[in-house]
Amino acid sequence: MLTFDLLHTDPANADTGYAGSHARRGTLTLNHGVVQTPIFMPVGTYGTVKGVMPSSLEDMGAQIILGNTFHLWMRPGQDVMQSFGGLHGFERWNKPILTDSGGFQVWSLGAMRKITEQGVHFSSPVNGDKLFMSPEVSMQIQTTLNSDIVMQLDECTPYLSVEPKTKGQITTEREARTSMEMSLRWAKRSQDEFARLENPNALFGIVQGGMFEHLRQESLEALVAMNFPGYAVGGVSVGEPKDEMLRIMAHSPHRLPTNKPRYLMGVGTPEDLVEGVAQGVDMFDCVMPTRNARNGTLFTRYGDLKIRNARHKTDHGPLDPTCTCYACKGVTRPDGSVSGGFSRAYLHHLDRCAEMLSPMLSSIHNLHYYLNLMAEIRASLESGTFGAFRAQFKADRARGV
Amino acid sequence: MLTFDLLHTDPANADTGYAGSHARRGTLTLNHGVVQTPIFMPVGTYGTVKGVMPSSLEDMGAQIILGNTFHLWMRPGQDVMQSFGGLHGFERWNKPILTDSGGFQVWSLGAMRKITEQGVHFSSPVNGDKLFMSPEVSMQIQTTLNSDIVMQLDECTPYLSVEPKTKGQITTEREARTSMEMSLRWAKRSQDEFARLENPNALFGIVQGGMFEHLRQESLEALVAMNFPGYAVGGVSVGEPKDEMLRIMAHSPHRLPTNKPRYLMGVGTPEDLVEGVAQGVDMFDCVMPTRNARNGTLFTRYGDLKIRNARHKTDHGPLDPTCTCYACKGVTRPDGSVSGGFSRAYLHHLDRCAEMLSPMLSSIHNLHYYLNLMAEIRASLESGTFGAFRAQFKADRARGV
Repeated sequence: MLTFDLLHTDPANADTGYAGSHARRGTLTLNHGVVQTPIFMPVGTYGTVKGVMPSSLEDMGAQIILGNTFHLWMRPGQDVMQSFGGLHGFERWNKPILTDSGGFQVWSLGAMRKITEQGVHFSSPVNGDKLFMSPEVSMQIQTTLNSDIVMQLDECTPYLSVEPKTKGQITTEREARTSMEMSLRWAKRSQDEFARLENPNALFGIVQGGMFEHLRQESLEALVAMNFPGYAVGGVSVGEPKDEMLRIMAHSPHRLPTNKPRYLMGVGTPEDLVEGVAQGVDMFDCVMPTRNARNGTLFTRYGDLKIRNARHKTDHGPLDPTCTCYACKGVTRPDGSVSGGFSRAYLHHLDRCAEMLSPMLSSIHNLHYYLNLMAEIRASLESGTFGAFRAQFKADRARGV
Repeated sequence: MLTFDLLHTDPANADTGYAGSHARRGTLTLNHGVVQTPIFMPVGTYGTVKGVMPSSLEDMGAQIILGNTFHLWMRPGQDVMQSFGGLHGFERWNKPILTDSGGFQVWSLGAMRKITEQGVHFSSPVNGDKLFMSPEVSMQIQTTLNSDIVMQLDECTPYLSVEPKTKGQITTEREARTSMEMSLRWAKRSQDEFARLENPNALFGIVQGGMFEHLRQESLEALVAMNFPGYAVGGVSVGEPKDEMLRIMAHSPHRLPTNKPRYLMGVGTPEDLVEGVAQGVDMFDCVMPTRNARNGTLFTRYGDLKIRNARHKTDHGPLDPTCTCYACKGVTRPDGSVSGGFSRAYLHHLDRCAEMLSPMLSSIHNLHYYLNLMAEIRASLESGTFGAFRAQFKADRARGV
């Protein structure tokens, strides 16, 4: 089940000379609830967003999170997932969940996997077992996970080849076409198996085609003809230079059907998100907020901040004075006391002492930053000021912390 | 400032044949608030209870936490602490804090330190700087930290010698006496410096004397003559066999003044806490709940549980069905939804995947277990049923999980 309602767009304005953009504001209704778009989806690989309490995710207003099919297939395994009736019950998350197909992780195994038309043979990185992934298997696992949004199995077309014979070479048009065409055949097999399993959720097709606009157009048109309830743009953030990514981001999203949600997979920086929205993207996911948090890089309205930097040692100020997260501002308790609201000096100290509270607070801050950025984008689309927001965002981020 | 009010004791009852105990229920009023005793104090070495959000500590009803003077002296250092007006502002904890003297950590440096009557010369384990710790220095640092309870500098008398010439030998009566007598002189110097600094908090003296009751009696009487507002029993949990610990625990606490709080340092297991209360102890601290949590050992009403054990892989039940912590039971949100409340299977999975949420949830559970155990002890003392509680506690813990 999936319903997408388009609430606002960002049209040009002849009076003000504003050029407009492909940005849009919508609501996405799924089996476990309603998601306001554009949205960022925190990544919960193994059934947990790394270092973040579920209660913190709820507090910061996360509306939908990801799970990784491949990882959850390896551990805890399909039998445990089955016994819990899916991922929601296992990880105790009651709002929508999107799962990827597992294709990217299988592909990433490199020498440990062999891709054929039928599917991917590989050795489990956990225990060495010989395993097989196919469109059918991916649908079966994702049906067990009972995720609200299921992704088709696709083949990830890399920017630089990882195959032994062509390693390090830029993927050719012929290679990208071959890969894209197999992903289309896998899209059909995914769709058929999804229907056979009577999965009550929503299956997304994934646009591929490497860095070639004409291949992406072919992929897109073929998928649209298959009438998926939603579409993703895959094969970006796969090692390509930033300008290549922006070129593909400018091509595909806005050419997808207006009345269906569009998901840009694995992207990206705050700047990428704002540009992605301008290109018509509704949904994003990325490990960057949590991974960077664990490495001491914090996102703020005025640019990125390295908490390890010695200049923060005696700084009583918060990471971001405009941020309302638990780490920056804290929360006021019913008894009037304030919990949280920490200084850069304290966060610097926690990092220096390798205390677990450092990645915990940093992950909350970064995820809150991403979610709040999307909330600000949504508000600007509602008030018809996305163009001004986009300019102010760039200026603020360039200011420096 | 310290006020201790004794509310209930645990007298013998000739009618029922109950033998009574030294257990007592009291309130301890400090500069940052009131503490209900008997109490367990979570350890926040570097200004953070490892792996636990301050909001979680508040949620589980922690009334007072520890800070380690030595660690905080090394990092972030006295200048940063001074700039925050003490540890409360730095770590954003508004309730009482107790700091140790730093003596135990300096003593633990082994070959890197040299103890003289004047104090301890040592090399910083962080940067190799040559440093000096003395009763005066400890009081100065703890005054900067502005902890509600300050501990005198003492010399830890080990059970087995760590000195090069006598390493591994059981401490002799002569050695224990020499050490205890120096600790008494350091108690006086601590008291004088604490007064000179006009520290507005409360300084505790520490009973030493190794495993020798007559030395402990001498130490205790000399300290009582110095009229501290509270007393600790130190030099237990220093490598001695359990029966030796219980012997000392049975000697010292109840001989201290009835109208002053008694703190048993660094103890211990749940069983140790219940026995300590029976011997008249009011305050405990120990790293065990958080350290064991990080190692996958969980405390429950029915015994200890190793979450790594394969038998938990498919178990849908909570760690402890009687526990009301976030991990076991979760919390009900204002909108009626439940947050938290995880299965053993999920916790087993998190541990197996080395996910940070594993020690996070386990630390919450173990600390909640300790704090709840003390709450149950307090309730039993209020209702005059401590003897029955003590028996039931032992039976429950022996039952097995």
